Amino acid sequence: MCRPRLPCPVPPPSVPYDILPRITDPRDLDGLTDAQLEQLAGEIRERLCSIVSDRAAHFASNLGVVELAIALHKTFDFKKDRLIWDTGHQIYPHKLLTGRFPQFDTLRERGGLMGYPNPEESDYDLFVTGHAGASVSTSLGLKAGDDLVHPGEDRKSVAVIGDGALPSGVVFEAFNNAAGLQKDLLVILNDNEMGICPRVGGLASYLDAARTAPYYDGLKKDVAWLLNKIPVVGEQSTKLLSQGKDALKHFLHGGMLFEELGFRYIGPVDGHDLKSLTATLERVKHVRGPVLLHVLTEKGHGFRPAAADPVTFHTPAPFKRDDSGQEVAEIRTSSTKAYTDYAAAAIHAALTRDDRVAVMTAAMCQGNKLETVRADFPTRFFDTGICEGHAVAFAGGMAKAGARPIVDIYSTFLQRSFDHIFQEVALQNLPVTFMMDRAGLCGPDGATHHGVFDNSYMRVFPNMTVMAPGDAGEIAAMLDFSLQHNGPCSLRYPKTAAVTVDRNAPPIVHGKAEVYEHGADGLLIGCGIMFPVAVAAAEKLREEGLDVAVVNPRFVKPIDMDTLGPLMDEAPWVIAAEENVVTGGFGSALLEAANARGVRTDHVRLLALPDEFIEHGPREEILADFNLDAEGLRATALSLAERNVTAA
Amino acid sequence: MCRPRLPCPVPPPSVPYDILPRITDPRDLDGLTDAQLEQLAGEIRERLCSIVSDRAAHFASNLGVVELAIALHKTFDFKKDRLIWDTGHQIYPHKLLTGRFPQFDTLRERGGLMGYPNPEESDYDLFVTGHAGASVSTSLGLKAGDDLVHPGEDRKSVAVIGDGALPSGVVFEAFNNAAGLQKDLLVILNDNEMGICPRVGGLASYLDAARTAPYYDGLKKDVAWLLNKIPVVGEQSTKLLSQGKDALKHFLHGGMLFEELGFRYIGPVDGHDLKSLTATLERVKHVRGPVLLHVLTEKGHGFRPAAADPVTFHTPAPFKRDDSGQEVAEIRTSSTKAYTDYAAAAIHAALTRDDRVAVMTAAMCQGNKLETVRADFPTRFFDTGICEGHAVAFAGGMAKAGARPIVDIYSTFLQRSFDHIFQEVALQNLPVTFMMDRAGLCGPDGATHHGVFDNSYMRVFPNMTVMAPGDAGEIAAMLDFSLQHNGPCSLRYPKTAAVTVDRNAPPIVHGKAEVYEHGADGLLIGCGIMFPVAVAAAEKLREEGLDVAVVNPRFVKPIDMDTLGPLMDEAPWVIAAEENVVTGGFGSALLEAANARGVRTDHVRLLALPDEFIEHGPREEILADFNLDAEGLRATALSLAERNVTAA
Repeated sequence: MCRPRLPCPVPPPSVPYDILPRITDPRDLDGLTDAQLEQLAGEIRERLCSIVSDRAAHFASNLGVVELAIALHKTFDFKKDRLIWDTGHQIYPHKLLTGRFPQFDTLRERGGLMGYPNPEESDYDLFVTGHAGASVSTSLGLKAGDDLVHPGEDRKSVAVIGDGALPSGVVFEAFNNAAGLQKDLLVILNDNEMGICPRVGGLASYLDAARTAPYYDGLKKDVAWLLNKIPVVGEQSTKLLSQGKDALKHFLHGGMLFEELGFRYIGPVDGHDLKSLTATLERVKHVRGPVLLHVLTEKGHGFRPAAADPVTFHTPAPFKRDDSGQEVAEIRTSSTKAYTDYAAAAIHAALTRDDRVAVMTAAMCQGNKLETVRADFPTRFFDTGICEGHAVAFAGGMAKAGARPIVDIYSTFLQRSFDHIFQEVALQNLPVTFMMDRAGLCGPDGATHHGVFDNSYMRVFPNMTVMAPGDAGEIAAMLDFSLQHNGPCSLRYPKTAAVTVDRNAPPIVHGKAEVYEHGADGLLIGCGIMFPVAVAAAEKLREEGLDVAVVNPRFVKPIDMDTLGPLMDEAPWVIAAEENVVTGGFGSALLEAANARGVRTDHVRLLALPDEFIEHGPREEILADFNLDAEGLRATALSLAERNVTAA
Repeated sequence: MCRPRLPCPVPPPSVPYDILPRITDPRDLDGLTDAQLEQLAGEIRERLCSIVSDRAAHFASNLGVVELAIALHKTFDFKKDRLIWDTGHQIYPHKLLTGRFPQFDTLRERGGLMGYPNPEESDYDLFVTGHAGASVSTSLGLKAGDDLVHPGEDRKSVAVIGDGALPSGVVFEAFNNAAGLQKDLLVILNDNEMGICPRVGGLASYLDAARTAPYYDGLKKDVAWLLNKIPVVGEQSTKLLSQGKDALKHFLHGGMLFEELGFRYIGPVDGHDLKSLTATLERVKHVRGPVLLHVLTEKGHGFRPAAADPVTFHTPAPFKRDDSGQEVAEIRTSSTKAYTDYAAAAIHAALTRDDRVAVMTAAMCQGNKLETVRADFPTRFFDTGICEGHAVAFAGGMAKAGARPIVDIYSTFLQRSFDHIFQEVALQNLPVTFMMDRAGLCGPDGATHHGVFDNSYMRVFPNMTVMAPGDAGEIAAMLDFSLQHNGPCSLRYPKTAAVTVDRNAPPIVHGKAEVYEHGADGLLIGCGIMFPVAVAAAEKLREEGLDVAVVNPRFVKPIDMDTLGPLMDEAPWVIAAEENVVTGGFGSALLEAANARGVRTDHVRLLALPDEFIEHGPREEILADFNLDAEGLRATALSLAERNVTAA
C-alpha cells in the first residue's frame, strides 16, 4: 500500500538474485541500465525480506533506503569519498552493494556480518555507528581531515541522517560548525516520518510542513524572478526590501530552517524514484558549501506489511511470508516475559499510585514497552525524541518542582546524558530515577548497544544511589524504594527473559545487601542478573560438597560493607560477578570499599567483562566465554577452592 | 563607549549605595520610581566594579544583565514563578536583588556566596548551574512539574540563555520538546554577541542578521495587513498562498529560525532600556505557549574598559580603578607560568612540527591560551563553540581521515562528550588526544567547574590510554607520545601554577611508570599533580628518618603493575594520592590491577577527594583538608609507619 507520492515497489523477481550476486563492488553498478538498477533494487528488497525470515534484524528502515543506497554508490566513489550512515541500522543495502552479498546470511550472527557499519568488514564502512546523531559531525571531520591530509583531492563527504535522529543536539552543533566552516558537505535528510517510534516535537511539525512544500533547488533564480513581480509596499524601507529575497525563498520552499542555520537546502525529492534521485545527487555533488538534501522515503517501502506498520517491522521477530511473498503468513512472537515487561508494569503501577510520578522515554516507547503507560497516562508520559541529554535535564526540572520523574533509557544511550546526570541531577541531589534497560550484553546489536559501562559511570558522581535488581521481582521494589528516596537513584536490568529467584526477599533498604544463603566454603556475590547465576552455581557446588554463601548485593553504591565485610573476612575465597566491564564496575567498588574498611581482598576474584569492546553474538554464549554463567562461576569457585586446599 | 543602539550607562552615584541596601527581597522593587530603578542599576554596577577590585570574578557578563535582572524581578514573582540563569556566571545582579547584598563581599570566598546560582543560599536560586545550555530543559521541566504538582497555579517559567550557550545541542533538544508540548515557557535570549570568546558558527551569522532586523512582536496582525497589500502572482497556487503568511513574517523579522522550531519570536529589544524592557516583559508574561524573547545587551555595559574588551574582562584579574571610577588604573596580572601555558606551548610545537595535527577548543580559546595557535595556524584551529559533543565527534572524523586532532577541553566540560568519546573515538580506536585542562579542583568556581571525575570516567572505555603528567615538563612529552600512539589518549593537568620536578626524566613509554626514587620504608605513588607533592613529602619524611620510595605512575590506564607490583609487595605501606574523587579513580584502578595480579593491597591507603561535591574555595586549602598536600601525605605516612611498628 504505497502512499500516493511514492512509486509502487518492484515485485520480487522470479529469479530472486540475478544482478545482486554480480555486484562485488559499487563500480559494478556503472554498466547497469535503469531497468537493471530497478531490478537490483527489487533483489535487494527480496534479500532483506528473506533474511528476516529466520532472525530478528532491522527491516523497515533498510527497505526504505534501497534506492538511496544505489544512487549514492552510483554517484560517488566511496573508495575516496566519505559516507556515514547515521545510527547505522539502515546499512544492509550498503553492505549488499559493497561486496558482502555472499556473507549476508551471517548477518548479526556471532563472527558474521555486523548489523551496523563495521570498518573491520569493509573499507566502505568508516565508523561503527549505532548511537544516533553524530554523522554530521564525523562527516564534517572527515572533510576537514581530508582537506588537511589529502589536499587537492576534493574528496566529497556525505552523511545520511534520518528525521528521527535529526533532533539530537549534536546534529545542531554540527550544523552550526559546518555553516561556520563553509566546507563542502552533503547532508542527506532521510525523511521517513519516523524514528523507531513516530517522531515528536517541534521539528516533527516543521518537517511535516516541509514535506508538502514545492521542490526548491536552492539556486535562487526563481526567487529573483518572483521578487520582481511583487510591487514594493509603501511602508517598506530599503532594509525590508533586502530581506525580501529570503522571505520569498520561504514562499517557495520549506527548507528555511536549514537555510537559516547556514545550509543550502535542496528538496524535497522522492527517495524511491531511482533515476531522478541519481540525477539530483549528480548535480548536488558539485554544489559548494554545506548542503542539505531533503529526501522523502517510506519506511518499509516495497513490503506492504512493513510499510503499513513500520513500528512493528522496525526489528520484527522472525516471520514467514505467504506464497505471494508480499504478505506475512506467520510471525514468531514470544510470550516469555522479559525484564522490560516487569519494568513497564512497575512504572505503570507507580503512575497509578502517585500523581507526582511521570516517565520520560527518548524515542523508545516501544523498546521500553511503555505503550500502555502512554495510553493510560498521556499527560505524564514524555517522549523527548532521541534527546537523552534533554530528557535528563528536563527530569531534573520536574523533580525540582516536586514531581517524581522516571527516566527510562537504555543503559548505553544514557551515556549521552552523562553531564546532565552530573549537573542537573546529582549535583542538585534531585529525586530522579534512572531505569537503565538493556544493561549488560545486548546480543546481536553488538558493541554500540551493549550496556556494559553503567556500573562504572553511574557511581562516579556523588549523591547517586546505584542499584542492580537481583531478579525481575526486585525491579518494582527498587523503583518504589527510589520514588521514596530523597535523591537520585538508578537501577539496571538486562535485555533477556525475566528470571525470578524464589524466596522471601527482604524489603529494599538503602545500601543493604541481601544475604541469600550462608555457607562456610566460599562466597558468591552476584551483582544484579548475576545473582540468579550465583544461586544456580551454588546449587551445583553443593552437589560437589561445597557449601557456599550467596549474596545479592542490590546496591552498587553504596556498597554494604557492614554485611559484606564480615562475610568476606570469614570466607576462604570470594567471587564477585557482574555483567559490566571490570573497569570501575561493581567489583572495583567492592575493592575500594573493602580497602577503606580494612577488609582483606587478596582472596577476591572479580568476574566481569574484560576491558575490550565486545562484538555481537548471543548473550549467553558471550557470558559463558567470560565465565559469567553458572558453569563459569562453579569452575572458578572450584579452582579457588582447590588453590586454597593446595595452599593449606 | 556605548554602541549607538544602547543608552549610556548611569554614572556611579555619589553616595554609592542608597537604594541597593534596602532591597532585601525583589518585592522591594515595587515601590520604586523609574528614576530610582535606574539609580539602582547604577548602584549594582558600582558594586560589581568594586568586587573585582580585590578578587577575580565574572564581570562583563554581569554588567550586561543588570537591567534584565531588575526587569525580571519587577515583572515576575520568583517565589512561585521559576527562573533559571543559564551557565550562571551572570548571576550577581540577581543575587544582589534577592537579599544577598550584605554578604556580597564574601563572593567566591570559601564559605561565602558562590559565583553561580546556589539553592543553599536562596530559594530564588533553583539550580546550581555552571555548564552551559541546560536552562531551557530545566525550565521546561519546572513548568511540566508545576503543572503536575501545582495545577491551577499558572506558575511562569523563564530561562535566560546567552547567545554563547545557544548552539549547545541540548538547547535545540529542549526547543524541539517545548514546541511539541506547547507549554507556556519564556526563553530570553541574552544576545551580547559573545560567549567568553566571540561567538562562532552558523548561528552566529544568523544572530548577526537578526540583531538588525526590525522589531517583531509575533502577533501577526501586521503580517496580515501587509499580506493584503501584495497581489497574488499568477503562477501561485493556493498552497503557495497559504505559505505567504510565514514568508512575510520573515519579511518583517529575523526570528524565523525560532518560529520554524515552533517558538513564537519576539524582538529584538534593547536590554538596557529598563522601562521598555519591563513593559515588554509585562506583556510577554501573558503570552501562551513557548516564546523566545530576543534581548540585545552589551557585555561590560556601563564600564567602558569592560565593554571595549569583554574577553579580558570576562573574569579579569583584580584591578584598581582610577579616580573617575570609570577607567582601569592598574590590573594585577601574574607572570607565573601555569600548566595551561605549558599545554598551549606543547600544542603550538606539535602543530609546527606536523601538518596533520589540528586542535579543537569549545569556546575556550582564551581559557586554553590558544590565541597564538589560532593566529599562527588558522586552518588547523577549530573553535566549535560550546559544543563539546560535536568537537569530539568532529575530531573522530578528522582522525579517521588521517589527521591528528587534539581536543583541548576542560576536564569538567569534557563530561559533555562522554558518549562521543565512547562511540566516535574509543570504539573506533582513533588517535584523538584529549587535553583535559582544569583537572582537579578549580578553586573559586566550585562544584560545576572542579574537574575531579576524569580519572574515573576516562578509563571506563576500552582502547583509551589515560595519562596524568607528573609535572609541567611532562605535558609536552605526553602530547608527543600521544600523537605517535595509534589510539586515543588523554592527559590531565590542573588549573594552577606549573610545578617542575628537577630530574632526568625517562622518556614516556606506553603504560610505564617512573620510579623517581627507591626507599625501603614506604611507597608514595603520586598521580599527576600529586607527584611533586609526594616528592616534597618524601623529603620531609627523610628528615624524620624514613626512606620512602616515590613513583610517578604517569598512566592511569594501563596501570604499570610490572613496576608497581614488586614495589608494593616490598613496601611496608603504600599511599596512592590523586586529585580526583576516590570513586573509580586512579586508586581504584590500582586496586583492580593489583587484585588481578595477586599483589597485596591491605597496606595501601588511597588519598583522594571524597565522594561528595566540593564547594568553591582556594585549591590549596581544600587539598590540605583532604591530606592532599605534602604535610597531609607526610602525616598519613607517619601514621601508617607507626601502625606498622605497633603491629610488629
